Amino acid sequence: MDETLEGADETGPTDPETACFEAGIKFGSLYHQFAGTPVTPESAPSLARAMEEAIENQPHCEEVTVDVREDELAAACADGYTEMTGRFIEVGIVVAYEGCTVRTRMEMEEGYPLMRVESVDR
Amino acid sequence: MDETLEGADETGPTDPETACFEAGIKFGSLYHQFAGTPVTPESAPSLARAMEEAIENQPHCEEVTVDVREDELAAACADGYTEMTGRFIEVGIVVAYEGCTVRTRMEMEEGYPLMRVESVDR
Amino acid sequence: MDETLEGADETGPTDPETACFEAGIKFGSLYHQFAGTPVTPESAPSLARAMEEAIENQPHCEEVTVDVREDELAAACADGYTEMTGRFIEVGIVVAYEGCTVRTRMEMEEGYPLMRVESVDR
Amino acid sequence: MDETLEGADETGPTDPETACFEAGIKFGSLYHQFAGTPVTPESAPSLARAMEEAIENQPHCEEVTVDVREDELAAACADGYTEMTGRFIEVGIVVAYEGCTVRTRMEMEEGYPLMRVESVDR
Repeated sequence: MDETLEGADETGPTDPETACFEAGIKFGSLYHQFAGTPVTPESAPSLARAMEEAIENQPHCEEVTVDVREDELAAACADGYTEMTGRFIEVGIVVAYEGCTVRTRMEMEEGYPLMRVESVDR
Repeated sequence: MDETLEGADETGPTDPETACFEAGIKFGSLYHQFAGTPVTPESAPSLARAMEEAIENQPHCEEVTVDVREDELAAACADGYTEMTGRFIEVGIVVAYEGCTVRTRMEMEEGYPLMRVESVDR
Repeated sequence: MDETLEGADETGPTDPETACFEAGIKFGSLYHQFAGTPVTPESAPSLARAMEEAIENQPHCEEVTVDVREDELAAACADGYTEMTGRFIEVGIVVAYEGCTVRTRMEMEEGYPLMRVESVDR
Repeated sequence: MDETLEGADETGPTDPETACFEAGIKFGSLYHQFAGTPVTPESAPSLARAMEEAIENQPHCEEVTVDVREDELAAACADGYTEMTGRFIEVGIVVAYEGCTVRTRMEMEEGYPLMRVESVDR
């Protein structure tokens, strides 16, 4: 009987796995909620702040930091404004779930915005 | 010949009509860019500010004001947070195009958020 | 007395102006709801169809047609997928309001997606 | 020396944890890209199809299934159309990363759409 239960448990997620799932949700939410927003270097700070505070509302989300890549954004706005996308920001998100803290980050890598898990504090 | 040309011209938009088209674009953009954003009474001010500054970047847009309906939002957040939608905000957008100023507004009417043209200054 | 009433009426929108405002709402909605969606040449047809049917739900909207610019999209997907944005589609939207039909269009012009009113059938 | 390396490794994610992070990204993306889309029972199938094909473009994503909760949607559209949100769909997403398959699901639970990891095939 115990073995059956153990067998069932083995396919369920561990707490660190659930914490990583939750962190991924926050990243996908942040990116696809705000991608496409009209933005300039002047309006970027209010957008970054809104992104942080909006996603921090989600469950288990401890902290969101959005840093604007100002030179990249200014270059794209030479003719006016542009649309928010991954290459204009660096994002850090910290999620805590059942005593497990996960730190995740989005940065440019080889020309693409890459989201990854930096550390899992088990 | 002149009549033919006049006939052709008659199907093109007037400046006030183009101004109204531009104002509509701003309203649709604002609504569908930000609908679904996680929001609470605490985070609503930064979201409202970002909405204003983002849409003011668009061409011919003079001013955007987003007022949060705080009681309505607080009631919807009794259990945590909610998603931004039309019944939590009142929005005013002013567009100027070729000397024509159009004032537009979104407010609740009979339970639905209604967007309308308030005035056209020809 | 009549003059005062006439003066008040003069600032309100005409039916063609309201029709143009409604058409603008549809364009802003379509663009900012779907900008940022992951897309490839293979998945573009289902996205285009969803865009058409979604926006046709909005009030006074007669017809929406979304044509994918396939070569442009294929070139942007050489390394995998890309995000939907204005340079991958051409859009036509027809709005009818109080007997007035407005035809509007988004096409690339000088490197930017430009939305404009093609004709107003008064 | 080995201990230092082990110490460093311990904070990095395991493959199953990365797989769960990737699955979370897909869920957040799907939800916040499409929440707010105008929808009716008639247009829901094309939207569901677009959601599936769009998110399947993302890295490591094996399969996305979006099932419309038709009765719930029809009830919300009694007066016309409504906006897509979590209570109108059930979603399954399968992610495979480095030989690890993660099955995730969004369903209504106690009145809220809940996203969760169903199984991790290590």
